[in-house]
Amino acid sequence: MAQALALAARGLYTTDPNPRVGCVIVRDGEVVGEGFHRRAGEAHAEIHALAAAGDRARGATVYVTLEPCSHTGRTGPCAEALQAAGVARVVVAMVDPNPLVAGRGIRLLEEAGIEVAVGLLADDAQALNPGFIARMAAGRPFVRLKMAMSLDGRTAMGSGESQWITGPEARCQVQRLRARSSAILSGVESVIMDDSRLTVRAEQLGLDDAAAIASRQPLRVIVDSQLRLPLAAACLRAPGRTLVMTTSDDVDRRARLTDAGAEVQTLPADAQGRVDLPSLLAWLARHEAVNELLVETGATLAGAMLNAALIDELQLFVAPTLLGGEARPLFALPGLTLMADQQRLDIHDIRAVGQDWRIIASPLVTGARDDTKVP
Amino acid sequence: MAQALALAARGLYTTDPNPRVGCVIVRDGEVVGEGFHRRAGEAHAEIHALAAAGDRARGATVYVTLEPCSHTGRTGPCAEALQAAGVARVVVAMVDPNPLVAGRGIRLLEEAGIEVAVGLLADDAQALNPGFIARMAAGRPFVRLKMAMSLDGRTAMGSGESQWITGPEARCQVQRLRARSSAILSGVESVIMDDSRLTVRAEQLGLDDAAAIASRQPLRVIVDSQLRLPLAAACLRAPGRTLVMTTSDDVDRRARLTDAGAEVQTLPADAQGRVDLPSLLAWLARHEAVNELLVETGATLAGAMLNAALIDELQLFVAPTLLGGEARPLFALPGLTLMADQQRLDIHDIRAVGQDWRIIASPLVTGARDDTKVP
Repeated sequence: MAQALALAARGLYTTDPNPRVGCVIVRDGEVVGEGFHRRAGEAHAEIHALAAAGDRARGATVYVTLEPCSHTGRTGPCAEALQAAGVARVVVAMVDPNPLVAGRGIRLLEEAGIEVAVGLLADDAQALNPGFIARMAAGRPFVRLKMAMSLDGRTAMGSGESQWITGPEARCQVQRLRARSSAILSGVESVIMDDSRLTVRAEQLGLDDAAAIASRQPLRVIVDSQLRLPLAAACLRAPGRTLVMTTSDDVDRRARLTDAGAEVQTLPADAQGRVDLPSLLAWLARHEAVNELLVETGATLAGAMLNAALIDELQLFVAPTLLGGEARPLFALPGLTLMADQQRLDIHDIRAVGQDWRIIASPLVTGARDDTKVP
Repeated sequence: MAQALALAARGLYTTDPNPRVGCVIVRDGEVVGEGFHRRAGEAHAEIHALAAAGDRARGATVYVTLEPCSHTGRTGPCAEALQAAGVARVVVAMVDPNPLVAGRGIRLLEEAGIEVAVGLLADDAQALNPGFIARMAAGRPFVRLKMAMSLDGRTAMGSGESQWITGPEARCQVQRLRARSSAILSGVESVIMDDSRLTVRAEQLGLDDAAAIASRQPLRVIVDSQLRLPLAAACLRAPGRTLVMTTSDDVDRRARLTDAGAEVQTLPADAQGRVDLPSLLAWLARHEAVNELLVETGATLAGAMLNAALIDELQLFVAPTLLGGEARPLFALPGLTLMADQQRLDIHDIRAVGQDWRIIASPLVTGARDDTKVP
């Protein structure tokens, strides 16, 4: 199963919106076939592995990181293919996270007389597909917030000047985070300030198949309640789609943005008339099949999402430098004035990335505060 | 020599203002004597080791972490004692850092026909006594700035509420930092806000000889240009001395502070009429023999010292929590508005301390800025 997980990880940057899945077929203690899902529309991991195994699949044990599908999608149902190949046993790391279909593939196999075991290395299998699982099980993406900061928690100078806080190795890691994400979310204020393109740049990935990976650009999602996105914004001219999420009904502005290359979507407003963030996430999962959402934005939107308990993971890239108390803060948390209300974190990992440090953490949920603010 | 260094470290909390020194005497491949300096006024490391070796010192090799002294202080000169014991060879990790006496002990040994080698594990020997070396070689203490902060670089809520950002393990480490320091420096603003006692508390050290260690309280130094220290401040009633450094000539206020238990010292003013920080450090080295100075203070004084390039080492205790953009910053760096002026750091160590993380770093000196500010 460990080998199947490693195979699945090879689809990290390419399977979107499908899950990453790996499969290994073993007969008489020998691997007779293996495969992984590379790209939506192409064969599932099990089909690749069965093709490699050929006749040797008969009577074999199949290790697969996700429950084989029972439905006929763009490829035939894998459960039937396994049955047709005459496999004896299927070991599944985790069941399908979609509660409406979970267990169907397993039942189909069992009804065909195939022995099925579930749960081997389930945690690792889940870690491969946090976004797919969140979308299927909860109807929203897995939200990963990336920030680059100085050791004193500053993202930019007070003036907004911010280029090159972190070094090239950290920027490479950020490129890979973008590449594995279905979409990148930013607030219009950050886009105005940085005029970032928010694209995956093949030459910065440092991966063998960088060109193929960068051929899929994650969807850019700009939270822009008042439609302030400049028509000349670099992201509108970059490869890939830019989706502007608004509560504004300014028809002229919307038409001009559309002409400039944006897609504009109206969403429900929160109490302050701004884009309602839970609705935004649900919309992205439902209409754009967003699994992993990478948030790259400023203190206001980041703080609002944190306050609303919408952040699943934080990746902080910390540069060994101090910018001082007048520089821009990491999070605006306007409701937070008492130590008792502090946002505790669970730190999973701290490691050196070039000259910088990367901290991976998740917020400990203590109930959302309701004074959220979005640009 | 590694053993001698380990012995020297046993004096970490007690030798002040003397250096930590260890000594091992070896004859025929066998350790015949060892010792370390425990406390000022007591015997030096070499004397302890010679006493342990007795006659076996004759013809032996002596490993000592610091050049043996040539002067008659409170104990006799060690170089003469080594000569009298008839040792054949002395290996010295580092020469005396005082440029006026450096090499004298070595010369004395060589003139007595003893072979001397210098430099073995010199870096480790220097790391044992950063403060003694700074005081002897540069006429100022080694300045270590300790701060406790949230992951977003905040030391307290905007209201000043700050208790318990970090956990008990981090607080134990801070207690040990205090215990190894000759003095603790704080700004009057921090003392007013936190009313900290700034003492070593035996029960929080987690060390076997905690009571003996806490019997020496580091000197408390309060930077208080306008003599605003409250007469009821907890530090004035705590064990040990409190030294108030001022530029004020308010005789009444000075008398009241003295009555309340403080010692008051007038120092030169900087351009803003505040205590001149380089003068302060020089004064502490010269008049109080301060080797290691631990700075525990707020953003203003910390920023001023950083700006003036007076910080040798930063120890940041980082709690896995977020306090938000309205909370108190780590450093006020008022002159810092351009990325080009950022204060780069060299990070030496990051490690977990209980639930928190400790980062040890040193500022990369790029020239002091001159808009320093002190309370």
